[in-house]
Amino acid sequence: MTVWADRLRLSGYVMLLGAVLTGPASAEAPSSPAADWAVSDFTLENGMQVVVIPSHRAPIVTQMVWYKVGSADEPPGKSGIAHFFEHLMFKATTNHPEGAFDRAVAAIGGHDNAFTSYDYTCFHETIPPGSLGEMMAFEADRMRNLVLSDQLVETERDVVMEERRARVDNNPSAILDEEVNATLYQNEPYRIPVIGWMQEIQQLNRQEARAFYDRYYVPNNAVLVVAGDVDPEKVKALAKQTFGKLARGPELPPRARPVEPEQNTRRTVTLRDARVSLPSFSTRWVVPSYHTAKPGEAEALDLLAEILGGGTRSRLYQELVVKQGIASNVGASFMGRMFDGTSFSVYAAPRGNAKLADVEAAVEAQVARIVKDGVTDTELEKAKDRFVRSMIFARDRQSGMANIYGMTLTTGGTVADVATWPDRIRKVTAEDIKVVAARYLDMDRATTGYLLPKTEAGD
Amino acid sequence: MTVWADRLRLSGYVMLLGAVLTGPASAEAPSSPAADWAVSDFTLENGMQVVVIPSHRAPIVTQMVWYKVGSADEPPGKSGIAHFFEHLMFKATTNHPEGAFDRAVAAIGGHDNAFTSYDYTCFHETIPPGSLGEMMAFEADRMRNLVLSDQLVETERDVVMEERRARVDNNPSAILDEEVNATLYQNEPYRIPVIGWMQEIQQLNRQEARAFYDRYYVPNNAVLVVAGDVDPEKVKALAKQTFGKLARGPELPPRARPVEPEQNTRRTVTLRDARVSLPSFSTRWVVPSYHTAKPGEAEALDLLAEILGGGTRSRLYQELVVKQGIASNVGASFMGRMFDGTSFSVYAAPRGNAKLADVEAAVEAQVARIVKDGVTDTELEKAKDRFVRSMIFARDRQSGMANIYGMTLTTGGTVADVATWPDRIRKVTAEDIKVVAARYLDMDRATTGYLLPKTEAGD
Repeated sequence: MTVWADRLRLSGYVMLLGAVLTGPASAEAPSSPAADWAVSDFTLENGMQVVVIPSHRAPIVTQMVWYKVGSADEPPGKSGIAHFFEHLMFKATTNHPEGAFDRAVAAIGGHDNAFTSYDYTCFHETIPPGSLGEMMAFEADRMRNLVLSDQLVETERDVVMEERRARVDNNPSAILDEEVNATLYQNEPYRIPVIGWMQEIQQLNRQEARAFYDRYYVPNNAVLVVAGDVDPEKVKALAKQTFGKLARGPELPPRARPVEPEQNTRRTVTLRDARVSLPSFSTRWVVPSYHTAKPGEAEALDLLAEILGGGTRSRLYQELVVKQGIASNVGASFMGRMFDGTSFSVYAAPRGNAKLADVEAAVEAQVARIVKDGVTDTELEKAKDRFVRSMIFARDRQSGMANIYGMTLTTGGTVADVATWPDRIRKVTAEDIKVVAARYLDMDRATTGYLLPKTEAGD
Repeated sequence: MTVWADRLRLSGYVMLLGAVLTGPASAEAPSSPAADWAVSDFTLENGMQVVVIPSHRAPIVTQMVWYKVGSADEPPGKSGIAHFFEHLMFKATTNHPEGAFDRAVAAIGGHDNAFTSYDYTCFHETIPPGSLGEMMAFEADRMRNLVLSDQLVETERDVVMEERRARVDNNPSAILDEEVNATLYQNEPYRIPVIGWMQEIQQLNRQEARAFYDRYYVPNNAVLVVAGDVDPEKVKALAKQTFGKLARGPELPPRARPVEPEQNTRRTVTLRDARVSLPSFSTRWVVPSYHTAKPGEAEALDLLAEILGGGTRSRLYQELVVKQGIASNVGASFMGRMFDGTSFSVYAAPRGNAKLADVEAAVEAQVARIVKDGVTDTELEKAKDRFVRSMIFARDRQSGMANIYGMTLTTGGTVADVATWPDRIRKVTAEDIKVVAARYLDMDRATTGYLLPKTEAGD
C-alpha cells in the first residue's frame, strides 16, 4: 500500500485537494450545489458517524473510514505510532489472514489505500457498488479484530524505519521541512513529523500499538464516508449490519492539545546539502484553522492564499513569473482544515540567473503590498467564483467531496460546515482579507526555511 | 520568597555556580580535596537519599531538600506546574498555618528560599545548627501535609502569572531566550520554559496540583543535603526522626523523556524590540550532558567552554575584548549538569562602534580555530588547575558543595560522580577537546539568537 505520511506527501495530498478546489470553472452555469449534493448523514447507535454522497455518473463507489486520530494525538516520545498503526491495519485479523482484504479488492477490480496525517487516519477502497457490503464487513472486522504479535510489530517497524530513510533522510527538502515545522510550531504537536522521529519509531512496541488500537480504533471515534453510485437507505442498512454490530468503545476525552504561544521572533532554518541543485525558500506563519478561527477568518485566509499565490492568475505568479521572470514554483498556501492552529505559507525558487535573495525580496514585497493595500473587489470576486465553483467540480472526482467531508469531520467540523462553506466564502469582504493579512503576515514573526546547494555562499 | 524559575534566572544561578567552580585559585597549595570532604551519604528506609557535608568554619548549617522533578517532567500542555508547585509549598499544612515556616526561620536569624529548574526543585534554609531538627520537621511536614484549596490555588496562579509578566514579558532578552530554546530543542522538554507558557499557567488547577504533589513530593523522590557545622551521626538521627517517619510514595517510572533528533540545519531567531539598546547574540548547540555523554565527553566540553570563553583568561575574552577591543560580555558556557542532552553556547555584544556582524564573525573565527587546531597543552593544564581548585573553593561557600551534590543527584548522577570529577577532569587530553569541538561546534548545525534594537537594520 502507499502511505501518505510525512509532510511532503501530505502536502502533495492537500495540494491535490487544493487543485480540485481551485480548478478552472466550467463554462456551464452551475445549478445550486446545496440542492444537488443530496448528502445524508446519520450516526449509528455505537457512535460511528456516517456520511453518504450519492453520485451516479459511474458504477463505482468509494468507501472511506476516517479515524479521529493522527500524529498530533500521539503521547510524548511515541511519535510515529499513528502512521505505524496505519501499516498494522493491513495485517491479519481473527477472521482473515494478512492480505485477504487487499486480494478481495483486487479480485473485484477495485483499489484500496490509506493515509495518515496530523489529525486523522483514513482507509479507503474504490469498488463496484455491489461489493460495498463485503468491503464494509472487511473494514468493520479490522477496526476491532486485528491480531498483533511482537514479531509482526517488529517486522513492520523495520518497514516503517526504511520508509523514513527513503522518504525523509534521502530527501533534503523533507529533512528541511521537518526542522522548519519544529521551529514554526514551538508548542503544538504539528511540530512533530507525521512519520515520527527515527529514534522514537525504533522504540515502538506491541503493548503501545495495542493500547493505541484499543483507545482510538473504535466506532465512536470513526467516520464512514461513502461516495458514489449508491442509495443512501441501502448504505444505511449495510452500515448497520456491519459497523453497527461493533461495541462502542470507551469514551475519549476531548482532543485538548498544547496550543501555540504568541510568536515574537523572526526565525530562519537553513539546510545546505550537496544533493540540492536549485535553491528555494518558504516563509510560514502560524494562523488559525477553520476549527480555531473566529468566524470568517479562515475563509478570509483561504481567499488571501488564492489571490496572493493560488495558481497562475495569482499576484505572485503574475508578478514574479510572468512580469519579472525571476521565479519558478511560486505560490501561497493555507492549510485550513486542521484541528489546531495551522500555517500560511509563501514560497518560491529563482529561475535562470536570478538570486534567491532577490526572489525572496520580491515575494516579501507582494506580501507587504497586500498587507498595506488589501485586494481589489475584482480579484476578490474572481477568487470567490473559483472557490465556489470548485465545490461543484469536487463532485466530479468521486473522492473529492468524500475527502472534504472526511477532513472536515475529523478536524472539529460538522456536515453543516461543509454545506455552508460556499456561503461563508461569498460573505468575505476585501476589508476582511486586509485585516487577516495585516494581523498574521508580519515578517518580524515569520519562519523561513532555506534549501541551498552545498556551494551556495549564503543568503 | 524568590523563585529562580525562568532560564534567565536559572542561567544566573548556574553562572553563580560556574563562578564558584572557576574562581581564582588560592595561593596556598591545596590539600587533597577527597580526603578533606568527609562527605557521608545514606538512604532512609523510605527511599530518601541524604548527603552530609561537614564544614566547621562558621556555626551555621544549610539544609537543602531537592526533589527529582522539574519542568521537563511536566505533562504536555501543563507547563509551569513544577514552578507553580514550588510556590504552593509555602502555603499552610495540616500542622502549620501559612507563613509559620518562614517566620520560624526569620526568628532564628536564618534565611530560606527555593528554586525550580528543568530537572529539579529545591527548598533550602540557612540556620544555626541547633535549629536543624526543627527545620527538618518543617520540611518533612510540607513534603506530605500541604493543604490545597481551589481558592488558594487560583490566587497563587495569579501571582505566578504576574511573575511571568514581570520577568519574561517585560524583558526582551527573556522573550528571545524562550524562543531560542524552543528552536534549539525540537523534541526534548528543555524546549519549554521553566516558568511555563502563559496560556498553560492560566489553566492549572487544584486537581492537577494535587496529582503532581502526590506523585513527586515523596521521600523516595527527594534528596536531603545538609552542609555546615554538623556531626553526620546527629544529622542521621535527626533525619530518621523527621523525614524517616514519612511513608514511601508510589514508585516512579524511570524519567524517560523525548530525546532530540539529529539537527541538520542552521537556525536563527531574531527579536527586534524597542526596549533593546545594545544588540547581542548567542549561538548554541545541542550537546550531551554529564548524564547522557560517553565517558569523558562532558568533561572535555567543560574544559572547552573554559578555554574558549570562561572568564578573562579565555580565548574569546583575550581576542575580542583585550586585543581587538570590539566586544563586551563575551563568553562560552556549557550547562553540563542536566538529565538530558543540553547546550553549549558562545555569546557576545559589540562595544563602541563595532558592528554585531563583525563581533559574530570574530567569535565564529575563534570557534573555527579551536575546531581546526584544538587547544595547547599549557591552556589545558591551566584550565584543569582552575577547575580542580574550584572544587576546593566550592567548600568555602557552604552552599557551594551542597548545590553540586543536589544538582548531580537530581540529574542522574551519583555521590561517587562528584568525588571522581576532579580525576576525570585531569584525564582529559587536548585531543579529547579537539574531538568534541569538531563533533559538536558545527556552524551548519547551530542555533543563533539575535537581540536587536528596533531600529537596527539587520545583521
